[in-house]
Amino acid sequence: MRNIRLLVEYEGTDYAGWQAQKNGPSIQGSIVEAVKRLTGEETTVNGASRTDAGVHAYGQVACFNTASAIPPANFRSGLNMFLPDDIVVKEAVDVPLDFDPRRRSLGKTYVYRVLNRPYPSSLLRRFAWHVARPLDIELMRDAAVHMIGEKDFTSLRSVESDALHSMREVRSIDISAKDGELIEFEVKGNAFLRHMVRIMVGTLVDVGRGRITAGDIPSIIDDKDRRSAGMTAPPHGLTLMKVDY
Amino acid sequence: MRNIRLLVEYEGTDYAGWQAQKNGPSIQGSIVEAVKRLTGEETTVNGASRTDAGVHAYGQVACFNTASAIPPANFRSGLNMFLPDDIVVKEAVDVPLDFDPRRRSLGKTYVYRVLNRPYPSSLLRRFAWHVARPLDIELMRDAAVHMIGEKDFTSLRSVESDALHSMREVRSIDISAKDGELIEFEVKGNAFLRHMVRIMVGTLVDVGRGRITAGDIPSIIDDKDRRSAGMTAPPHGLTLMKVDY
Repeated sequence: MRNIRLLVEYEGTDYAGWQAQKNGPSIQGSIVEAVKRLTGEETTVNGASRTDAGVHAYGQVACFNTASAIPPANFRSGLNMFLPDDIVVKEAVDVPLDFDPRRRSLGKTYVYRVLNRPYPSSLLRRFAWHVARPLDIELMRDAAVHMIGEKDFTSLRSVESDALHSMREVRSIDISAKDGELIEFEVKGNAFLRHMVRIMVGTLVDVGRGRITAGDIPSIIDDKDRRSAGMTAPPHGLTLMKVDY
Repeated sequence: MRNIRLLVEYEGTDYAGWQAQKNGPSIQGSIVEAVKRLTGEETTVNGASRTDAGVHAYGQVACFNTASAIPPANFRSGLNMFLPDDIVVKEAVDVPLDFDPRRRSLGKTYVYRVLNRPYPSSLLRRFAWHVARPLDIELMRDAAVHMIGEKDFTSLRSVESDALHSMREVRSIDISAKDGELIEFEVKGNAFLRHMVRIMVGTLVDVGRGRITAGDIPSIIDDKDRRSAGMTAPPHGLTLMKVDY
C-alpha cells in the first residue's frame, strides 16, 4: 500500500466546502471520484484543512492510500484529467504511510482579500469581499497586533466549531493594500478554529471603519464569547495559501 | 441632451463580446438594457473597443446620450444596480456631445496572460491561456522588438477584419513573468486590428517554444499574409486595460 500526498488548488465557488456533504458537491468528494476513475479503487482522501463552502485554496494538502503502481508524477496528470476545471492537482508525491496531512501540519497561511472601494468588481467578485465604506489600514494593523500570540480564541471561533479546545497560536497578520483598494490580510498560525480567520477579518473591518477601536480587541478576546467579536466575513474572500510541514 | 462617458470593467467569459450579437448576450446590450431600466430611455452605447467573445476589460470606455437629469455619480450606482455581477461601471462623467470614445482614443493598453507550467490552474482558468510547454521569455522579448513601430499589420489581423487599412502603431510590448509561471504581455498601441493582440501573442509563443525564431518576425510581417503568422491565442487570456484620451 502507498500513501500519496497531493498539493491541490481549487476555486471553492461552486462547492459545499472541502468535506463531503449531503447538501452539494465537495472538493474531497470530487478527488475521491477522480481517484476511483483513475485507479478503480474506492479510497478516502484526507485534507490538511476543512475549508468552508466558497473558500478557495492555492495550496491545500491531501493524502490518500492506493495499491496502484502509477508513478507519482502520473497521478498529477491522471487526476487532472478526471477532475473538473475548478480543481487542479499541482503536485503528487509518495510519502510514508503514517503521514497525516492535518496532524503533521506545523502551520498554515491564509490570505483574506477585501476590495475597499465604493463600487464592486466584476473581475474579483469571486475572490474578494466588497466593503464600500473606507477602511483605515493603520487602525486595522494596530488591532491585529492584539490577535497575535498563543491565546484562547473562543471569541473568534464559530459556535458550531467541534474543536476540543480553543488555544491556537497566531504567528503573524500582515495587512497590505494594492492600488489602495485591494486589501490583503495574510494570517499565519499553527492551526485555526472553524471560521476563525473570517471572524478575525470581520472584527478587523469593524476597527477599520471605526465601529470599535484597536484597544477593544484584548477585551473581546478575554470575553471568550463569540458575540463580542465582529461578523464572520463572507467565505469567498478567503484562500488557503500554504500548509507547512 | 447629455453625453455620459462610462469606465467599465467586465469579465467576458459569458458574453458573445462587446458588440450586440444574435448568438448570445453582449456587454453593450447589457448596458443598453441597464440604461433603459434606469432612465426609461432607449439609447445607443458606443465603446472604445469591440472586444471579442470571452475577452475581459479592466478599463473599457463607453458613451451614451441621455435626456435624464440624473447626476453623473448616480449613473454609476444606478447602472450597477441593474447590471449583472460580471459588468461593473467604475466611473460615469459628463463629456461634450461630440466626444466619441473610439475616434477620440489616442491609444490603448491590453494585457495578455499566459500560464506557463505543466498543469493548468483552477483560480486563473478564466483569465490566462494555459501553455504547458516551457517558453523562453528572452527569445519572445527579442521577437517582440520586431513588432514595435508603425507598420502594416495585415499578417497579424483576422481575415475577417473590416478595417479600411492595416497600418497601426505598436508603441511597446513588455513581457514579464510572475513566480516564473504567469507570463504577462503588456501591449500598447495607437489602435489595434481585429484579433491583432491575440495573433501577436500566438506568434510570440511560437518563438518562445522554438518553433520559429525572433529573426523570422520581419518576414512574417512583410508577407502581409495572415497564414504566415502563428495561431490566434484564445480570447480568455486577454484584458483591455486602459484607453487613453
